[in-house]
Amino acid sequence: MTSPAQQDAPFEDWHETLLRVRYSETDKMGIVYYANYLVWFEIGRAEYCRARGFSYLDMEQNDDAFLVVAESYCRYKAPAFYDDELLVRTHITELRRRSLRFGYEIVRVANGQIVAEGETGHVVTDSNGRVRSFPEGYAQRLTAPPIVKTTPTTGNEVPSQEGPA
Amino acid sequence: MTSPAQQDAPFEDWHETLLRVRYSETDKMGIVYYANYLVWFEIGRAEYCRARGFSYLDMEQNDDAFLVVAESYCRYKAPAFYDDELLVRTHITELRRRSLRFGYEIVRVANGQIVAEGETGHVVTDSNGRVRSFPEGYAQRLTAPPIVKTTPTTGNEVPSQEGPA
Amino acid sequence: MTSPAQQDAPFEDWHETLLRVRYSETDKMGIVYYANYLVWFEIGRAEYCRARGFSYLDMEQNDDAFLVVAESYCRYKAPAFYDDELLVRTHITELRRRSLRFGYEIVRVANGQIVAEGETGHVVTDSNGRVRSFPEGYAQRLTAPPIVKTTPTTGNEVPSQEGPA
Amino acid sequence: MTSPAQQDAPFEDWHETLLRVRYSETDKMGIVYYANYLVWFEIGRAEYCRARGFSYLDMEQNDDAFLVVAESYCRYKAPAFYDDELLVRTHITELRRRSLRFGYEIVRVANGQIVAEGETGHVVTDSNGRVRSFPEGYAQRLTAPPIVKTTPTTGNEVPSQEGPA
Repeated sequence: MTSPAQQDAPFEDWHETLLRVRYSETDKMGIVYYANYLVWFEIGRAEYCRARGFSYLDMEQNDDAFLVVAESYCRYKAPAFYDDELLVRTHITELRRRSLRFGYEIVRVANGQIVAEGETGHVVTDSNGRVRSFPEGYAQRLTAPPIVKTTPTTGNEVPSQEGPA
Repeated sequence: MTSPAQQDAPFEDWHETLLRVRYSETDKMGIVYYANYLVWFEIGRAEYCRARGFSYLDMEQNDDAFLVVAESYCRYKAPAFYDDELLVRTHITELRRRSLRFGYEIVRVANGQIVAEGETGHVVTDSNGRVRSFPEGYAQRLTAPPIVKTTPTTGNEVPSQEGPA
Repeated sequence: MTSPAQQDAPFEDWHETLLRVRYSETDKMGIVYYANYLVWFEIGRAEYCRARGFSYLDMEQNDDAFLVVAESYCRYKAPAFYDDELLVRTHITELRRRSLRFGYEIVRVANGQIVAEGETGHVVTDSNGRVRSFPEGYAQRLTAPPIVKTTPTTGNEVPSQEGPA
Repeated sequence: MTSPAQQDAPFEDWHETLLRVRYSETDKMGIVYYANYLVWFEIGRAEYCRARGFSYLDMEQNDDAFLVVAESYCRYKAPAFYDDELLVRTHITELRRRSLRFGYEIVRVANGQIVAEGETGHVVTDSNGRVRSFPEGYAQRLTAPPIVKTTPTTGNEVPSQEGPA
């Protein structure tokens, strides 16, 4: 028998991926435009899946299941700037037969500051937009611990530790 | 003395502006990518101001006041598609000395369907990012009824009613 | 018999559509980010078609023909700013059996300044990405003069001439 | 004395950075929207600089020099798809006192296919948009070989070679 604690445990697994703020993501205030945080949430979701051994693309292409966004929420706590390295932290906050919620934190690497927090709610549909349940196996994979070891990497170049060649 | 009813009355004023979905706003699901609704909310805010006789740009350029986004929320109720004409409905849901909240509805013109609803919370800052109160006069303008008559127009061409020339 | 002059004449038809610069389109330099001009070119193409009585969407949905972009060029002559009203001028510069080129000018309405010029080259494909020729009738429609009278409209609200209500 | 060959040699240095296609970068054709290649070119430029020991941001912030885009060109040779890993190859094709040109290739990692090639031309300006020459030292840095060893990394997670933990 599964105790509630065991069932909830995987939800504690935050996944972390790094990205670097692009020039195109800034606006005339000199900071990141607010809609771009939702783009980063999407990257967080994709990498959360990849760390569990599957690509979100597989789910669409091989299993006719799409995670349509039903809700998004973001709280902007501090501005993010061009060229900032940001850690996107992602976890699952709710998993049901036909729906799913992710929670996120965006952290500035340079100072550990949380620049934003958010949440997205998703419904599983087929390619015709009809609500369906998760395909076989996905609920387990999504709540399992990461099965491949991943190295958080910045969106782009990471100067090696060794310094000048 | 102002009664609560009078004070609240302007908040009932929804402003409506039309736009047309761009190809760039769609994604591989064939529908509008979820972050773009926040871009449309921003257009709703800008046009809400313009209908009240000022450009949001004036507020930034002439009065050193920026409406920094502190929170965003969107509920996606139906997909929006390329080339759809959408009505962005915007109103103020809360106005304080140093902050402001807008509420939104996105309606598909072709069938009157509400495709999304949302809300954004803003803090007033100066160009250095310090919280400040609204500059003189803006609270009144924001809650006043529209002072210029506006014609909702689509994002781009509207074929005239008269048909072929 | 059609003389070369007659055949070329329609190509002289520039189509004009108005849009207003969005906050999301600016970057930290305080001007429009350079990739967004290509988004505006796409709007120019779509409205060029609409003025000739069809939606580019019809071509995709009803006639299985997609205008895949093969080339893009843009010369940036002056910066565009938030809230600027811009006229996107579009015409066809070359039309072949399986390909098409559009030319563009982006003009700032306030001062008539040309802020950018560009060109895009397209190949006609089916939904599987295979090159095909234009579906029946499209070559004629594309080079015909506009068949619906259109009113250039700004991206969003245009305060009416009549002034305050 | 510097021979022409020596002067030109650094221009042969292509810099390579990896990124992964985002869902937001696709459109309803199921492929990457054409304007996004220009965003990737910008990442290529930024990482080209970083590999030579400086951030493009330093140039803006510390030396009041901005690389304003004057021209962009892109040839789209094959579609790029969601989740593709792409190598952005960047080099300098021309360097003058007040201007600079970069050339680019975008390569799909999975099959080595060149999906796009492009070029951008830039003018150096100060923060007021006035043309100026490169600040002291930048011409040398830009044409020098990379001074930090960099490891190309994907836009996001790279599963480690070691496989499951």
